[in-house]
Amino acid sequence: MKLLKEKILEEGRVEEGNILKVDSFLNHQLDIELLNEIGKEFKSRFKNEGITKILTIETSGIAIAAITAQYFNLPVLFARKTDSKNLDKETYESNVYSYTKEKSYKIRIAKRYLNKNDKVFLIDDFLANGKALLGLKDIVEQAGATLVGAGIVIEKGFQKGGDSLREDGIRIDSLAIIDSLEDGKIIFR
Amino acid sequence: MKLLKEKILEEGRVEEGNILKVDSFLNHQLDIELLNEIGKEFKSRFKNEGITKILTIETSGIAIAAITAQYFNLPVLFARKTDSKNLDKETYESNVYSYTKEKSYKIRIAKRYLNKNDKVFLIDDFLANGKALLGLKDIVEQAGATLVGAGIVIEKGFQKGGDSLREDGIRIDSLAIIDSLEDGKIIFR
Repeated sequence: MKLLKEKILEEGRVEEGNILKVDSFLNHQLDIELLNEIGKEFKSRFKNEGITKILTIETSGIAIAAITAQYFNLPVLFARKTDSKNLDKETYESNVYSYTKEKSYKIRIAKRYLNKNDKVFLIDDFLANGKALLGLKDIVEQAGATLVGAGIVIEKGFQKGGDSLREDGIRIDSLAIIDSLEDGKIIFR
Repeated sequence: MKLLKEKILEEGRVEEGNILKVDSFLNHQLDIELLNEIGKEFKSRFKNEGITKILTIETSGIAIAAITAQYFNLPVLFARKTDSKNLDKETYESNVYSYTKEKSYKIRIAKRYLNKNDKVFLIDDFLANGKALLGLKDIVEQAGATLVGAGIVIEKGFQKGGDSLREDGIRIDSLAIIDSLEDGKIIFR
């Protein structure tokens, strides 16, 4: 997606440890116009899939999913990472390992909002090792629902998550795939 | 806001400890159509205030702020509760006490995204004790920016946060104010 790649080149900052900071538009400050273009792009790619629900994970997936959901006329469901009084006792749970935090955390979805008739579209801001997506996939399977695919804004193509999920037969559509951040230079696939 | 109150009466569930669960449409599953109506309502109430930035706090404020921001054509900024590699080192910080979790947590905003020329509109899903809003207000003041007011979806009017903030001269517009949840019954002001 050209507009997104231009934005990444303009405002993205590469920091030590292959970190790409896009906090000016994607995960701290939010460029709502860009999110709308991202939503339209996801819609055009997944419009014929009979999706019934958009699933994401707190925190940075929420705004992208909410804006995108407008183009699908569908509800969003976001997995909680923390214990929350807002959640039912009856939840689907999965463990997600975070490489950056070097520990596992639980993600939860209230059972009442996902069932075997659902066709689920996953949305997230970044895909690197793919552990968050695997956790969401696990929850979709626990619910007996169908996983239609995942829409990712930025995939770190030099990490293994995306390719490994694709090898498992999951459709992963990333709007920008980055092949290298070496020497502070952003190289797209 | 009539539509919101109807939705709360229809789908809200009152649980022990004056908890109002609205996870079917506001803070776990998201009813995007309703969020759009909420966004339009905030716009109509705050359209003449010269707002330059919409500020919220993770997690449940994000979707509401993002959808609302479309009507203002403004960027959203959301305060982070957790240490995050996505954040700059240069941040405004404030401590927020959580009564439900019985501990304080830090909220952070990267300094580069808020400055003295900003006129800031706060958005959040719930207002109860008002500690989160006070933390955001503190950050707005640290930046030398102007606080225009706060748009709240549901205020628990039987707790003291809203009234106390209003006594401090802050404009608080809550779309639904609940005066009582006693005996499992939702009474609006």
